Amino acid sequence: MQLICCQTATSQRKITKNINIDMAKEKIILTGDRPTGRLHIGHYVGSLRRRVELQNSGLYDKIFIFIADAQALTDNVDNPEKVRQNVIEVALDYLACGIDPAKSTIFIQSQIPELCELSFYYMNMVTVSRLQRNPTVKTEIQMRNFETSIPVGFFTYPISQAADITAFNATTVPVGEDQEPMLEQAREIVRRFNYIYGETLVEPEILLPDNAACLRLPGTDGKAKMSKSLGNCIYLSDSAEEVEKKIRGMYTDPDHLRVQDPGKVEGNPVFTYLDAFSRPEHFERYLPDYPNLDELKAHYMRGGLGDVKVKKFLNAIMQETLEPIRNRRKEFEKDIPAIYEMLKKGCETAREAAAATLDNVRKAMKINYFDDAELIAEQVKKFSEE
Amino acid sequence: MQLICCQTATSQRKITKNINIDMAKEKIILTGDRPTGRLHIGHYVGSLRRRVELQNSGLYDKIFIFIADAQALTDNVDNPEKVRQNVIEVALDYLACGIDPAKSTIFIQSQIPELCELSFYYMNMVTVSRLQRNPTVKTEIQMRNFETSIPVGFFTYPISQAADITAFNATTVPVGEDQEPMLEQAREIVRRFNYIYGETLVEPEILLPDNAACLRLPGTDGKAKMSKSLGNCIYLSDSAEEVEKKIRGMYTDPDHLRVQDPGKVEGNPVFTYLDAFSRPEHFERYLPDYPNLDELKAHYMRGGLGDVKVKKFLNAIMQETLEPIRNRRKEFEKDIPAIYEMLKKGCETAREAAAATLDNVRKAMKINYFDDAELIAEQVKKFSEE
Repeated sequence: MQLICCQTATSQRKITKNINIDMAKEKIILTGDRPTGRLHIGHYVGSLRRRVELQNSGLYDKIFIFIADAQALTDNVDNPEKVRQNVIEVALDYLACGIDPAKSTIFIQSQIPELCELSFYYMNMVTVSRLQRNPTVKTEIQMRNFETSIPVGFFTYPISQAADITAFNATTVPVGEDQEPMLEQAREIVRRFNYIYGETLVEPEILLPDNAACLRLPGTDGKAKMSKSLGNCIYLSDSAEEVEKKIRGMYTDPDHLRVQDPGKVEGNPVFTYLDAFSRPEHFERYLPDYPNLDELKAHYMRGGLGDVKVKKFLNAIMQETLEPIRNRRKEFEKDIPAIYEMLKKGCETAREAAAATLDNVRKAMKINYFDDAELIAEQVKKFSEE
Repeated sequence: MQLICCQTATSQRKITKNINIDMAKEKIILTGDRPTGRLHIGHYVGSLRRRVELQNSGLYDKIFIFIADAQALTDNVDNPEKVRQNVIEVALDYLACGIDPAKSTIFIQSQIPELCELSFYYMNMVTVSRLQRNPTVKTEIQMRNFETSIPVGFFTYPISQAADITAFNATTVPVGEDQEPMLEQAREIVRRFNYIYGETLVEPEILLPDNAACLRLPGTDGKAKMSKSLGNCIYLSDSAEEVEKKIRGMYTDPDHLRVQDPGKVEGNPVFTYLDAFSRPEHFERYLPDYPNLDELKAHYMRGGLGDVKVKKFLNAIMQETLEPIRNRRKEFEKDIPAIYEMLKKGCETAREAAAATLDNVRKAMKINYFDDAELIAEQVKKFSEE
């Protein structure tokens, strides 16, 4: 699941507004990441930063954040070791960013067997053609060149995702607009289930990012997507030297050959990163000649501002942003067994919640035969009358 | 799952031969039925009679027989009550036929959550196009008029069936030839899993019925299929009067108008039933004028033998065959809670077996993080070296 979302300085206001719609219901967030690599600044800008804000807003009763190893296996069946190795990396990145196990339940998807059981029953409520029409699935199938041989597990993952969401009675799923079809699929399943078996499941709402065009960071090479295989990511766990080196080597405007040439900021990842990370105080601290980003951009566009200067500024900001994350990570890395212990506790909490939902589901479906005294009494009566 | 199989008088010999192929491996049978109605004489001829023989042959180490409620729900999502009510009916029919809980583990599919988890992971090993090519699925989709809206759960049931089979390390699945593609799908999953994750699962073999053309009883109305909705079944639990009435009303040869007319035995369900049920001693007892079925058929074909006489003979045989089954059923019906207790125990036994397999599967996939001391040690080392 790509639970991508983004936030701007004004997102907190919007969040508060969204949340007031229904104060009666318990507010529960569900979100997560696939453990196919360490998390990078694209994840940070796209979702992690906001999750920490949501966590600390005090506006949610429960927050579940999961490491989607089972989902990662749907298209990594040949490479389980990659998934296995990255579970701990993602957990460390979470903690490093400020996800706090005291406030948020961090768990590993595969450790909650109840999710498989929910998926299994939800599969009866969705048709094959409905899955085929899901635009997110269509796109992702294309991205993975799966056209001719989609693994069934990948094809059905919107159903599995509905299980993930509903198992925790999640009311709120903070994702980007591109994930709206996934949420709609989950809502359809909830409505269908509740219609057939009676009110049981909670219908989730999407919590969209504030800025209309979700801020998806490009790679350092200017390519649209940060990807491990392209080697164009800045990881949250990169050392200060690595970060500096990656920024120094960043793609900019290829026509901006001499300092005095006018330069483009659009499609220039250095400026996209500044859009995402720079705040007024950064100018005061590291580039007092410019009052804000607009002025810096204007100078670059009219010519006379060199890439090196802009990159140095970006580097200063990134170091300031990433240093505390990196340091916290280093601290957490010192006690790996404690991280597993934390995850284990998270899994126990999550499992309890999911088991309670599954219990309700089985009761509603009336497949809890051995606990169903009414059924047994009914049958005794039926056969004694025959 | 339609676990249809049939047997003839010589099947025992064939079974013994099959079984000797590999005496080293534990011999485990898995078979079952969907609880969508009481079982009828088609089930009896097609599978139940043989199961009892296999059970009593002493040639199998373990026999698992399951009531496939979860699978029945894949195409009965709107009618869970039908499935729920029929679980006990199928259990009673099993016991009535001579399935012995002391020798065979009878369990209910939905009570074994491990099956859902196995299905979930197997789904990553099968492509959508592979499922679409499965001829059994194709046929069943047609039978159910599902062309345009196949529930995903129904579409994926060959995978779920592979989970049912492999969970119990079944070596032997007694089914009809039409189910061969299902077994082949299960074997493919086993091979793929073992190839990726190391030798873990047992490859099942089909145990085909002896007679090449699997004996599928037609309905009393001569239609190819016995079906509750057509009202053309003789149930194992039907009273003596009901059985007699149904036989009296059976479809025969419509051109056999007068006794002296020549009659057809092909496509004549009365003779098909005699093929399935009559034995030489029945002639001695109820129709001593004829030494065997061939002579009876010959007389019918040349003319001079009335339908009433043949039906009376069939009725005598059916009553003799069904009476002990009906009486045993009546006995079992007197203590319904005991049946549930038996099923509960069966589920416990089955769950233990499935959990052991799942444990091995999770170990092989290395997603048993918290029990994986090696993983944790590896990670501690990795991060201390960084």
